[in-house]
Parts: sequence; C-alpha cells; structure tokens
Amino acid sequence: MARVVQKFGGSSVADADSVKRVARRVVATQRAGNEVVVVISAMGDTTDELLELAKQVSPDPPARELDMLLTAGERMSAALLAMAIFDAGASARSYTGSQAGVITTAAHGDARIIDITPGRIVQGLEAGDIVIVAGFQGVAQDTKDVTTLGRGASDTTAVALAAALGADRCEIYTDVDGVFTADPRIVPAARRIPAISYEEMLELAANGAKVLHLRCVEYARRELVPVHVLSSFSDRPGTLVASFEEGTNMEAALISGVAHDLTEAKITVVGVPDEIGKAARVFSAIADVGVNIDMIVQNASVTDKTTAISFTLPDAERPIAIEALRAVQAEIGFRDIVYDDGIGKVSVVGVGMRSHPGVTARFFTALAEAGVNIAMISTSEIRISVVVDEAAVPAAVRAAHKAFGLDTASGEAVVYAGTGR
Amino acid sequence: MARVVQKFGGSSVADADSVKRVARRVVATQRAGNEVVVVISAMGDTTDELLELAKQVSPDPPARELDMLLTAGERMSAALLAMAIFDAGASARSYTGSQAGVITTAAHGDARIIDITPGRIVQGLEAGDIVIVAGFQGVAQDTKDVTTLGRGASDTTAVALAAALGADRCEIYTDVDGVFTADPRIVPAARRIPAISYEEMLELAANGAKVLHLRCVEYARRELVPVHVLSSFSDRPGTLVASFEEGTNMEAALISGVAHDLTEAKITVVGVPDEIGKAARVFSAIADVGVNIDMIVQNASVTDKTTAISFTLPDAERPIAIEALRAVQAEIGFRDIVYDDGIGKVSVVGVGMRSHPGVTARFFTALAEAGVNIAMISTSEIRISVVVDEAAVPAAVRAAHKAFGLDTASGEAVVYAGTGR
Repeated sequence: MARVVQKFGGSSVADADSVKRVARRVVATQRAGNEVVVVISAMGDTTDELLELAKQVSPDPPARELDMLLTAGERMSAALLAMAIFDAGASARSYTGSQAGVITTAAHGDARIIDITPGRIVQGLEAGDIVIVAGFQGVAQDTKDVTTLGRGASDTTAVALAAALGADRCEIYTDVDGVFTADPRIVPAARRIPAISYEEMLELAANGAKVLHLRCVEYARRELVPVHVLSSFSDRPGTLVASFEEGTNMEAALISGVAHDLTEAKITVVGVPDEIGKAARVFSAIADVGVNIDMIVQNASVTDKTTAISFTLPDAERPIAIEALRAVQAEIGFRDIVYDDGIGKVSVVGVGMRSHPGVTARFFTALAEAGVNIAMISTSEIRISVVVDEAAVPAAVRAAHKAFGLDTASGEAVVYAGTGR
Repeated sequence: MARVVQKFGGSSVADADSVKRVARRVVATQRAGNEVVVVISAMGDTTDELLELAKQVSPDPPARELDMLLTAGERMSAALLAMAIFDAGASARSYTGSQAGVITTAAHGDARIIDITPGRIVQGLEAGDIVIVAGFQGVAQDTKDVTTLGRGASDTTAVALAAALGADRCEIYTDVDGVFTADPRIVPAARRIPAISYEEMLELAANGAKVLHLRCVEYARRELVPVHVLSSFSDRPGTLVASFEEGTNMEAALISGVAHDLTEAKITVVGVPDEIGKAARVFSAIADVGVNIDMIVQNASVTDKTTAISFTLPDAERPIAIEALRAVQAEIGFRDIVYDDGIGKVSVVGVGMRSHPGVTARFFTALAEAGVNIAMISTSEIRISVVVDEAAVPAAVRAAHKAFGLDTASGEAVVYAGTGR
C-alpha cells in the first residue's frame, strides 16, 4: 500500500461542487489501494474576504490575531471536504495544522515549519480514514499560538507532511496542467515540462514562475520529496519535480524554461561618494528594514568621483527601502534616489548551461534581434536573468523561448531518471 | 481589582461597526479597573451560513466535521474583536474553546462541559491583556476533537468560565434590556424584572423565555454564579439572576413573570388498551428515540376499555416520535395517532406561589374571563402551565400578566437581597 499526500489549492475548492469533485478524486485514490493524506487551502477567495473583514475592524491588525482569523479559512474547507468524502462513501477526519502536529516558529504571518509530529495523522490512516489537514497553518512551538506560513504555503505543508510521513508520492493539484517552458499566456507555443530538477524548479520559482512556491521547492529538495504538479481539472500527467542523476538530461535540454517577473522595481542611488564603505552603508540601511534586494549594478562616474548604485527589489517593498535610504542620506552623503517600477525580469533556467558555453551569447543575441534592450544582468550556475523594460517582457520571453528550441516538441523528448526516495 | 466575564451574542457583533462598539465597551470595563474575559458568539448569521454550506456539500454531514466547520465562526469573531480592542488602545488575545481549556464530552453538536482548565486565560489576565474566548465550543476530553455545546451555548461558556475563574461578575450582553415579566411584543405593559432567582429563571427559560439558555441557568445555579443580563445597545441596569434568601421577596411578587412557548405540538395516542404496562410502552418507545416529552394527560374511556394518552413535545421532534410509535402500534395495540401543532403553552412562574394558595384559581379565572379554553395543565412548585389554542396565547398571556398585578409598576418595588458568592 502506497502512502500519498495530495494538496488542493483554493481554486480547486471554490464552491460546494468543486469540493465534491475533489472528494471523488481523493476517494478514488484511496480505493486504488493508497493511504491518502489531503492538504487543503481555503475556499476560493475566503482568505481575501477575511483580510477585508480585518481591515474594516482595524487598519493595522496584530499578526497573532490575523493568524487566528485567517486559519478559519482552511478549517472550513477541511471540514467541508471531510463531509463530501463521507457523502462519497469513504470516511475521513479533518485536522487543523495544530492538531496535525505542524510545529512552527512564532513568526505570525510568515512562520517556518520546525517539526512535524504526525501522531494523529498516522492514527487516522491506520483506522482506514482519509486524513485531511488544513494547509498554510501550524502552532508555535513556544507560545502554542496558531500561526500561518505565509500566502500559498499550503504547498509547503504538503511537502513537509510527505517528508514526515515517509510518503511515496506528494501530488500538488492546481489549476494548470503542470510546469510550462514559459507562461502560455505570453508564449502560445509553451509546452508542459514532464520532469524537472529541484534546482531548476527553484530558479524558476524564484524568478517569477507561480506554479510552486519557492519555500515548498526548497523543502522538497532538502527532504528529497518528489513532487508531482497536476491539474485538478484534468487527468494529464503533469510535471515531476525531483532529483535527477547528472548527465541523464539530453543535449537538447540546454534550457528547461523561461521565467518572467513583473513585480520588481529598480532603485538607483545617485551621487554616492566613491569612498570605501559607502556602498556597504547603502545596503546595510536596506537590510536593516528587512528588505531583500535582488540584482545590483554599480557604475562609477569618471567626472565627479561619485558612483550610481542600482538594485532591484519587490515593488511592494520600495516605499520602505526609500524611507530607510532617506534616513541615512545625509550620513552617507549621496545626492538623490530615483526609482523605476516599469521594469521586468526575464530569466532562462537550465542545468544544461553548466556544461555548455555560449548560452549567454545565444540569449543576448536573441534579445538584440528582438530589439530588447538589457538594463541589468545577473547569473547563477544554472540561470541567466536580465532586467528589461516592462513593455519589452513579452517579446523577450518569446525570443528566448524560440532561441533555445523550446517552441518545438523536441524538448519533450528529454528523458529524466527520477531518483525517487 | 474585580474579575469580570462579559458575553456578547451574535447580534452584538453582526458587522465591523458592532465589533468596534463591543471593543469600546470591553476596553472601558478594563479601564474602570477590572480584569476582563470576553466570551463571543459567531457574527450575526455566520452559523446559519456555515450550516447552509455544509448542506450543499452533504445532506447528512458527520457531527465531528460539522463541529470543525461551525467553530470557525467564533474563531473569526474572537480574532476580529481582539483586533478592534488593539485599535481601541488596549491589548487582547483571543483563544479558541480548546485553547481556553473548555473540556467537554465527545457528544459532537451537543457536548457538555466537564472541566475548565483556564491556565492560558489566567496567564493572559496576569499579563494585563483582555482575554477573548470563542464561545459555544470546547475540546473533547478523550478524543481531543473539537466540539460544540449546542446552539446558543455561548451563555454557558461564559458562566462556566466565570465559575472556574472565580469571577466577581458574569455579564450576558444581549439585544434586549433584561428579563421581562412577559414578552413585550405580546404585552406592551411588560416590565423589566430587576432581579430574579435561579429557580424562577430556570422555569421561565424552560417554558419559552428566550433571554437566557436553560443550561446556562442550570450551570449558574449549580456554581452559584450571579448572572447579569444586560443590553449591549444601552446602559440600562438589566436583570440580576442570583440566589436570594427566602422571605426577602415582598408579598406583591406572587408571580415573577409569564412565559409562553409556541414550539410544541400535542400528540394523542387513541384507543390504547386499558391494561397495565401499555402506557409505559408508549412512553418507552418515545424515550428510546431520544425525544423529551413535556406534559402528559391520560383519559380513560368508559365505553370501550381503552384510554387516550396525550402528551406535548417539541414540534421539531414530532416526526421522529410518530415514526417510533407507528413501529410499536401493532405490539401495543392502540388504534391511532393524531396530532395538533396549533397549540401554545402559557406559564406563570413565581417563588411566591409556594406560600400562597389560590394562585391556580386566580390564573384559571383570568383565563376563563378572557374566553381561553384550557386543554392541558401541568405544575411545579413555582410554576403553573396550561396548553391552549395557539391563537389564544396572546390573550392568555395578557390576562395572566394583568391578573397578577404585573401590568402595574408595584412589581418593580420588590427588593431582592442577592447573596453573591
């Protein structure tokens, strides 16, 4: 008997009919001879509605209480799914994150999973029940208060439970057919990636691909949990995210996919005195307010002994960063701060580039031929990212997708050998 | 410093503005020098909406899962009230019934409180916080599953917490000004009762008065918790429900109030063989399906050696009772079952009738003068109830209210000496 963790997102349980459809799928999985643990998100827009309610009561609600409020969402969907499973002829029991033994830090709204003590889940499975766990939530180790793991973190709950339970499979059901070579809304020729390594998936998720959450992929890689991304609206094969042996990917898979991200902004600090330690002061001022920056470019001016420091960051954090910089402007002695929120980042990701030179040249040539101007560049061992004008992002994504042969079906022929666990 | 438990019902927290109003009242109570524990119901129609959602998913949802679903309601209102309290300048922490230590039986949907382990509440109070507890819910001692105490049981949560915390006051905030001598919608001259004994309040609650729930009053009497019934929409003095020394109530308070109940039905089993044990079989058949009956009348027929057995019961349980009787009809050998759901019960309640004969005569005379026909009668030491035609209930209530001098202000002059605790 295999042990399976299945996670269903909010769009998969948007209303009573959807809940019933999920119930049928879950019951079918059990009837096929599996032990089934289901991780469930809040129904449809529930979380947003609860946030709106909180805003009506208080402009700045305390994080502990916001967590108490928001965790009601998954509690409701978990209970409703259990009812639908009974109605579909199987038996089930729903648990909150706390009841399921999801132990976290006390960082309300953004807690990290420290440990899983799945005693009650195992009991439920041994009793022959389908066990449903409210995703996105846990209980703080020290305070015993209810916590949430951050938006979309039900994926992480599923992977963490799969690891703790020694599950044979972890299936993440979503509203798309898997991970694609690019966003199909931008690149109609984008194709499903049948299998991808943790490292590539991490880079895609960190650079704008929204199918899986970054922390979930990190957790899966650390615990070596194979993750299947599947559609809850079809029976297509989806994408397997796992660890693959070196060299099993064919030559053609130079690039696995093209990701893009429109949520960043660029800040440029102008007229920074060209002295040792000034650039460090700029970045420590930003780090002190908890803002993560992404790319950095520094340009020295030859005329006036100053430099311009540009960096990108999530646009939502731009006001905090600018406020922090203004506070140290006199001390550092820079001239001004300018920003640009009309930028986009385009990244090509693939383990193949480790062993193949020329990827950068091919990428930049494709961008040039598409008339796209590059503002900033950053690279990792398996990724090249460029910042371009927001308006140029679709053209850049399409050009990269084509240049690396992702438009053609040959990429599909790549054979990965999943290591499993 | 006094310790106060304040309970607010669903109509007191129907929307964001109401939640803020409750927050202001609670904060004012703390600022007046009190330790404050708040018990809160689900907002407005939340519980009904969740029940509707459950019905959409399953026609017969399992009780454990229904409890998981419904308890989300108070969790949300508790968290929102905490936010509003922070916004009003004080600090608060909300707890679920389980976190607050409300330990119950495992009877999902109708659990009883077994114990209160209020360690976290006391911690919160000692930290200077206003502590908010989700009403109506607890955790089962054996299974550790979440339970509910039955509709409207937040009152009971409040009284149980007041007892466990040794609170100086337990205040039940509602949408009326207190307990009245009769329903003001039927008797415009009805007046607020400033103070009433547990025994009288029990009889009123058991016979149709809806201000306090029966189980709450039972709990308060057992634990000697004085309960103040107050309006959350005014600052009027309300009603004190407490234990009063014998003899402190004046002569005028022969009757404290008139209650009525339109939710019962009458079933008559006709043609029951007039043999020993036949009536007992009728009632044991009904008891076996868990239906509580109220009044009983048996009439022997002189012509055919059979009897007719009539009894009243909650109209909602009538189908179950009739089904149970049909199942034993052949065995018992009765002729038929007839029912009447067009009945009403009118009760006069007062400890004064213990020492004053003639109450029955005065009550029945008043009914006769008002042209009301009595179908059934039952009495306790401090109550006389009659079943009448549903249409005659308003006239009967008004006649009784007038006959016992409750229309005039003299009743207000009654002085009770509360024993406190």
